[in-house]
Amino acid sequence: MIYRWHWFIEWQTPSEFHAHEIERVYQEQKSKYQEVKLVELTRFGKSLIIDGKIQSTVSDEFIYHESLVHPLMLSLRDPERALIIGGGEGATLREVLRYNSFKEVVMVDIDDVVIEFAKKYMAQWHKGAFEDKRTKLVIEDGIEYLRKNKDEFDVIILDLTDPMKDSPSYKLYTSTFYELVKDSLSHNGGISTQATSPSFSIDSFSVISNTIRHVFGKSEVGVSFVPAFDGLWGFAFYSPNSISPMSQERVDRLLEEKGINGLQYYDGTTHYSMFSIPKYIRKYLENENRISTDDNPIYVPA
Amino acid sequence: MIYRWHWFIEWQTPSEFHAHEIERVYQEQKSKYQEVKLVELTRFGKSLIIDGKIQSTVSDEFIYHESLVHPLMLSLRDPERALIIGGGEGATLREVLRYNSFKEVVMVDIDDVVIEFAKKYMAQWHKGAFEDKRTKLVIEDGIEYLRKNKDEFDVIILDLTDPMKDSPSYKLYTSTFYELVKDSLSHNGGISTQATSPSFSIDSFSVISNTIRHVFGKSEVGVSFVPAFDGLWGFAFYSPNSISPMSQERVDRLLEEKGINGLQYYDGTTHYSMFSIPKYIRKYLENENRISTDDNPIYVPA
Amino acid sequence: MIYRWHWFIEWQTPSEFHAHEIERVYQEQKSKYQEVKLVELTRFGKSLIIDGKIQSTVSDEFIYHESLVHPLMLSLRDPERALIIGGGEGATLREVLRYNSFKEVVMVDIDDVVIEFAKKYMAQWHKGAFEDKRTKLVIEDGIEYLRKNKDEFDVIILDLTDPMKDSPSYKLYTSTFYELVKDSLSHNGGISTQATSPSFSIDSFSVISNTIRHVFGKSEVGVSFVPAFDGLWGFAFYSPNSISPMSQERVDRLLEEKGINGLQYYDGTTHYSMFSIPKYIRKYLENENRISTDDNPIYVPA
Amino acid sequence: MIYRWHWFIEWQTPSEFHAHEIERVYQEQKSKYQEVKLVELTRFGKSLIIDGKIQSTVSDEFIYHESLVHPLMLSLRDPERALIIGGGEGATLREVLRYNSFKEVVMVDIDDVVIEFAKKYMAQWHKGAFEDKRTKLVIEDGIEYLRKNKDEFDVIILDLTDPMKDSPSYKLYTSTFYELVKDSLSHNGGISTQATSPSFSIDSFSVISNTIRHVFGKSEVGVSFVPAFDGLWGFAFYSPNSISPMSQERVDRLLEEKGINGLQYYDGTTHYSMFSIPKYIRKYLENENRISTDDNPIYVPA
Repeated sequence: MIYRWHWFIEWQTPSEFHAHEIERVYQEQKSKYQEVKLVELTRFGKSLIIDGKIQSTVSDEFIYHESLVHPLMLSLRDPERALIIGGGEGATLREVLRYNSFKEVVMVDIDDVVIEFAKKYMAQWHKGAFEDKRTKLVIEDGIEYLRKNKDEFDVIILDLTDPMKDSPSYKLYTSTFYELVKDSLSHNGGISTQATSPSFSIDSFSVISNTIRHVFGKSEVGVSFVPAFDGLWGFAFYSPNSISPMSQERVDRLLEEKGINGLQYYDGTTHYSMFSIPKYIRKYLENENRISTDDNPIYVPA
Repeated sequence: MIYRWHWFIEWQTPSEFHAHEIERVYQEQKSKYQEVKLVELTRFGKSLIIDGKIQSTVSDEFIYHESLVHPLMLSLRDPERALIIGGGEGATLREVLRYNSFKEVVMVDIDDVVIEFAKKYMAQWHKGAFEDKRTKLVIEDGIEYLRKNKDEFDVIILDLTDPMKDSPSYKLYTSTFYELVKDSLSHNGGISTQATSPSFSIDSFSVISNTIRHVFGKSEVGVSFVPAFDGLWGFAFYSPNSISPMSQERVDRLLEEKGINGLQYYDGTTHYSMFSIPKYIRKYLENENRISTDDNPIYVPA
Repeated sequence: MIYRWHWFIEWQTPSEFHAHEIERVYQEQKSKYQEVKLVELTRFGKSLIIDGKIQSTVSDEFIYHESLVHPLMLSLRDPERALIIGGGEGATLREVLRYNSFKEVVMVDIDDVVIEFAKKYMAQWHKGAFEDKRTKLVIEDGIEYLRKNKDEFDVIILDLTDPMKDSPSYKLYTSTFYELVKDSLSHNGGISTQATSPSFSIDSFSVISNTIRHVFGKSEVGVSFVPAFDGLWGFAFYSPNSISPMSQERVDRLLEEKGINGLQYYDGTTHYSMFSIPKYIRKYLENENRISTDDNPIYVPA
Repeated sequence: MIYRWHWFIEWQTPSEFHAHEIERVYQEQKSKYQEVKLVELTRFGKSLIIDGKIQSTVSDEFIYHESLVHPLMLSLRDPERALIIGGGEGATLREVLRYNSFKEVVMVDIDDVVIEFAKKYMAQWHKGAFEDKRTKLVIEDGIEYLRKNKDEFDVIILDLTDPMKDSPSYKLYTSTFYELVKDSLSHNGGISTQATSPSFSIDSFSVISNTIRHVFGKSEVGVSFVPAFDGLWGFAFYSPNSISPMSQERVDRLLEEKGINGLQYYDGTTHYSMFSIPKYIRKYLENENRISTDDNPIYVPA
């Protein structure tokens, strides 16, 4: 037999790695910030890998992106201006643009190489979202952007790489950063962020949620299983109105009212699935009292 | 640096494997049926591996075993006699014995090597359950046992290895086998079975559920994320009373009434988590019309 | 830290694999016969991989190709016509063309995809050899070519992939095939073939040598360590004049006389290294009495 | 199929690893200095692993140990006192004790855990050598031993782990250390040391040889292919009489005269194999002018 021989190996920790067969390499680029590859994985199909971590795959990106966007959106009343920080694939942008109430969606990404890469090779992700006339693309560090920003946003979505030591992104999970976010958020605005994995790094998941609570006065968390991440993935939200207590019926009705059709992951039943946190994770969250600060930031293990 | 060098590699398919560092090997045995090793994994601690697959680990076995047992138990009214097929670690037995209504719990496992192994080295799993005076241990093939059995059971729990081609266990997931189970089930009795992973083998998960529906008239499924399996795990149930619609309050009250304390995973909120199936999995299940038969059995991919 | 994550994994047997980091993929192609990839390996640089086996790398291909060609050539007196079967990279051709006595060198390779691939991307191997006016390139199965061939060759060199079960190439290591070779060899002609690895498959190395002895009346073997193969590599020769007893001085003088300059591996001292077989391998060879036949061919383990 | 799942993974560099199936673990121990495991590898049988590196295997340890001992011994005239530093398995001791001229063989190893381990489980290596009445075993750091030593030795053999950064053993490859060795060497005495791999770390091989030349006035090197190391292995020697120019006939006659029977690797022909260094390695050695010093020591890559 011919064993499979072309592999992507993702390290979870120095004591664990997951290996996936690569069928072909579409494109490889090194930017100023990171190493980016688009490959065909036997299990997941076309997949974006940045610095050795699967970012998203064509076969299950809908889980992550729908989880990040829709629970927050349903809790808000006709938001008009959204800000996305990160999200180079354009898929978070795609989900946000489904809502007709938006007049402008600003997307700020630090790495134009990733954006060009996505525009050329990842139409299955962005589906033309970069060309939507409401879209305004800014290539800039998110922290810098927020420091200078004078505008107010009704929705701010943080679609970032994990807070790894020595990476720039760990600074986008601290109380200092969330204060900047708060300064740009409108009175009735809400935020969502990816919050790392409760399966691989419950510590960072828990601290991120607690840091948002510290800054915004409350936070809510949801979890979704993402096959390409081999684990539960966490999302943290702040909304002036509560997200998690929405009933199945309310979620399904709101989606219909807002004209959101064709979701593959999120609906009223999935809402329960996301926001009913298993007991052992709940206990962990309840006991959390740390916050991530610029002086003492939280990292995912490496 | 010294890289980690002693590894357990679990193959999900020929195109995917997950590797975990082994800190030490407690015991290795080959039985007539399978190769059994008990190792210390850096991430999960003491872990049972059979034929290259993690069966359960001391740090998260509670998720699988509580999922398999408690949702079914809460739906039944004071069952007195239980049958467990498989479950060599003794942890399913441990969870069943929490219910005082039981007068006898028969556990049938094909491999006495695994049982002796568990008795000696895996007290953290069975916690003395093999010594409970209600426990009756039978070393026998489950199919043979059911063929000869004249007794009636109020609960039958199938805690089996996956239905792999060329393994004996795939025969314990077919309509023929479930008919045998039905013949030994009391009028008000219910069953549960592990139902493979919706993440790695949604096919077998879906067919197992449908085969139970075919034989028993209905079936219900739940899913739990198990870290050591790196995926969602599926469970299929038949109960004369419905399991999934129980409210959080009802689950929590029933656990209290039955004196079930100290669960780490399952409670009223986790119940919603288990039985609120994400939309894309639900769609898959709804379209399933195959059943597993002795002539045309379902397998997990290999 | 960022662990390396893009890997080539070569399986030696089901119980052993060697993994090399891939820095980039230059080109991937599937031909009618095999899967061909040209990659940049961190350790070896540009490397040709066919069906999951490293064929040669830019940093050490000289060892294999010089070993295959020069010991045989020095034993022959002014050969004029050479036949190479296999050798798609063009590096064996490059080494043969160093000898001015040749008037024609016919190269027969089954797979034109490999040839086109080599012409475009592997100039460091062929160094223009395909354009030499003495070169005649034939795309055809080597067995077919020899069956129809009426010409006589003074040198026949077999530069083939390993004899793997279910591959076409195992038929090019049998007594039937060597009889075909003999039919096309001139009276004073000699042959060489790669003979698999004495480190990984001493069985096939030994049987190939013995099969040549059976057909041609005698055989000689040499071994060279090839870093990219992580083992000793074997070469088997038949020459009407003896190869191995040549002294260091004679080898160095012949190279000079024939105008062969700039070799990186082979010279008089290396000759001793190649033909002084370590004792335990010698013993194995001495006891060999099997021959590879079309009915009962030898394979490398898989 | 059941894929192999219990693996030893040896890292050559961060960009390369070799994986071997483990059939069973005989014994695992952590000493004050290192982590020691004795395992059964499918390819090599019983194998000693220290800090993630294969030290020797039952199926090919004879290559390394015969290479380290016999070329040096044949060049000396009836040595009476030998010192071995390192060599915990007892196999170097075994080879040295073959020579009847020895009246005392002192073996100095830093780690008594390894010695006890070898005595109990590795009889196939030491074959009772620890019980020979000429053997004197000292548990002590080799540097300390030499500093205090007042005796003279006719043979000093350095059988050490590789000079890895942050390991203690890199200090046993420097000019300072070799001066200590020289102080304890008798007028007609000679030394040998393992000299790391010309395949994986030609740098350290070359520098070790040059450092010996610097201290002793000359050095000679030999290479042997060791299957369990997947590469050529280097040995460096100093002898007042030359080793490498010995003819095949002389080597075979000396072995007979000294009553050395039953070697599996070394004889007159293998002598040529060891000391005929391939051209590209020879060139590298010729250009070496660095020496390893305590201030600026050479390391193997990690």
